[in-house]
Amino acid sequence: MKVKCTVSYDGSQFYGYQVQPNKRTVQSEIEEALTKLHKGEKIKIFASGRTDASVHAVGQVFHFETNLRIPDDRWPFALNSLLPEDIVIKSAAYVEHEFHARFDVVKKEYRYIINQEKIQDVFKRKYCFHYPYEIDLQSIEKACDLLLGTHDFTSFCAAKTEVEDKVRTLYSIEVIKEENDIIFRFIGNGFLYNMVRILVGTLLEIGQGIKSFEDIPAIFKGLDRRLSGKTVPGHGLYLWKVYYDN
Amino acid sequence: MKVKCTVSYDGSQFYGYQVQPNKRTVQSEIEEALTKLHKGEKIKIFASGRTDASVHAVGQVFHFETNLRIPDDRWPFALNSLLPEDIVIKSAAYVEHEFHARFDVVKKEYRYIINQEKIQDVFKRKYCFHYPYEIDLQSIEKACDLLLGTHDFTSFCAAKTEVEDKVRTLYSIEVIKEENDIIFRFIGNGFLYNMVRILVGTLLEIGQGIKSFEDIPAIFKGLDRRLSGKTVPGHGLYLWKVYYDN
Repeated sequence: MKVKCTVSYDGSQFYGYQVQPNKRTVQSEIEEALTKLHKGEKIKIFASGRTDASVHAVGQVFHFETNLRIPDDRWPFALNSLLPEDIVIKSAAYVEHEFHARFDVVKKEYRYIINQEKIQDVFKRKYCFHYPYEIDLQSIEKACDLLLGTHDFTSFCAAKTEVEDKVRTLYSIEVIKEENDIIFRFIGNGFLYNMVRILVGTLLEIGQGIKSFEDIPAIFKGLDRRLSGKTVPGHGLYLWKVYYDN
Repeated sequence: MKVKCTVSYDGSQFYGYQVQPNKRTVQSEIEEALTKLHKGEKIKIFASGRTDASVHAVGQVFHFETNLRIPDDRWPFALNSLLPEDIVIKSAAYVEHEFHARFDVVKKEYRYIINQEKIQDVFKRKYCFHYPYEIDLQSIEKACDLLLGTHDFTSFCAAKTEVEDKVRTLYSIEVIKEENDIIFRFIGNGFLYNMVRILVGTLLEIGQGIKSFEDIPAIFKGLDRRLSGKTVPGHGLYLWKVYYDN
């Protein structure tokens, strides 16, 4: 039987999601817990996609195959008791055999949080990017309008990205001010390597007047990573939700 | 000259506030940073009081003597650049020579946060006490009314407390529900060892019906730690603010 799980993790102490030899990763911790639960039988998980070192997840999704007969709502408790405290399974459900956590993704939501307090909030240091500079939200919102829709995002992904087709669609970008935080909320059909972090870096440079929102069309057209802004740090980024049909 | 500093710290990685041989403590980290800044001259700090292992501070206050002439508003930056990332100096001010961070305290505010989500929120695991049990807030509020005012708090402090006078005054207790969190906010003229954690433990037992709010007078009267509730964990506790005259 196939189980679909929603998992949240604090990315601070991980070398990202994907298994790497001799590194602590989210995937390896979950596979180890599942293997224990299956009395040594090796279980492999398939996630909606990777996340990088120090990037968090509120609603990452993965699936795996199992012969264990555990009720849906007991899976989180069974797994959480075997997982380290920085990974928490939020829910689980049996799904049809055809379901695939990566290939069936319809859209994804990422959030990026910056904190604008002058002096760093000690409790947010691993969960927001501390950015105490004045930014003009109106220019940022104008830039967001130009980023929306279907584009070749070559200029907004890490130069070493191996994927060939770099056309993606951004359905919505929201910029929400909450006290001293600014939350950037992106929903799209897919995201390239470092894409959200480069989009935010570019928006912040526009907010500071280093770049203009009017530069966006030329950045797209240039198909060159060097035209966009800096990549902001991973610890402000959250894989918030993965959407599937049904 | 005498400097008064307000400091916040994430208690997770400390063996409490006070210096202990071979342990990482808040006091020793701050004194080390100050000593560096004073080119090796040993600087001692005096705080409003101690906090225990894993207890956080939003607004702990301490003072120290210095011969350095740094403007008030530059002290936080000078010190923060030398401090580890889990201690942040929020503000500093020159004060009169008579000021003492401990002896001049007029009142203190502590907060204790519990999280009631069924499944732990991974981002709150070090910053709230996970308590997913149903509790009756009305009984808790009735108990709070009986705790207010001036009492001998012997039954509400750790048995090993050495202080002789255990009479303290609680000016206010607020119980605030915020989404899935419940925040207990205590303001008093002073707090005994483990007092807030035992008060919250007792209130939670009242909320669950293990004890009744009507037991409070007898618990006070008994002058016996065994009459009150369990001590809740340190990681839900925050020294929120220290009040002085002026």
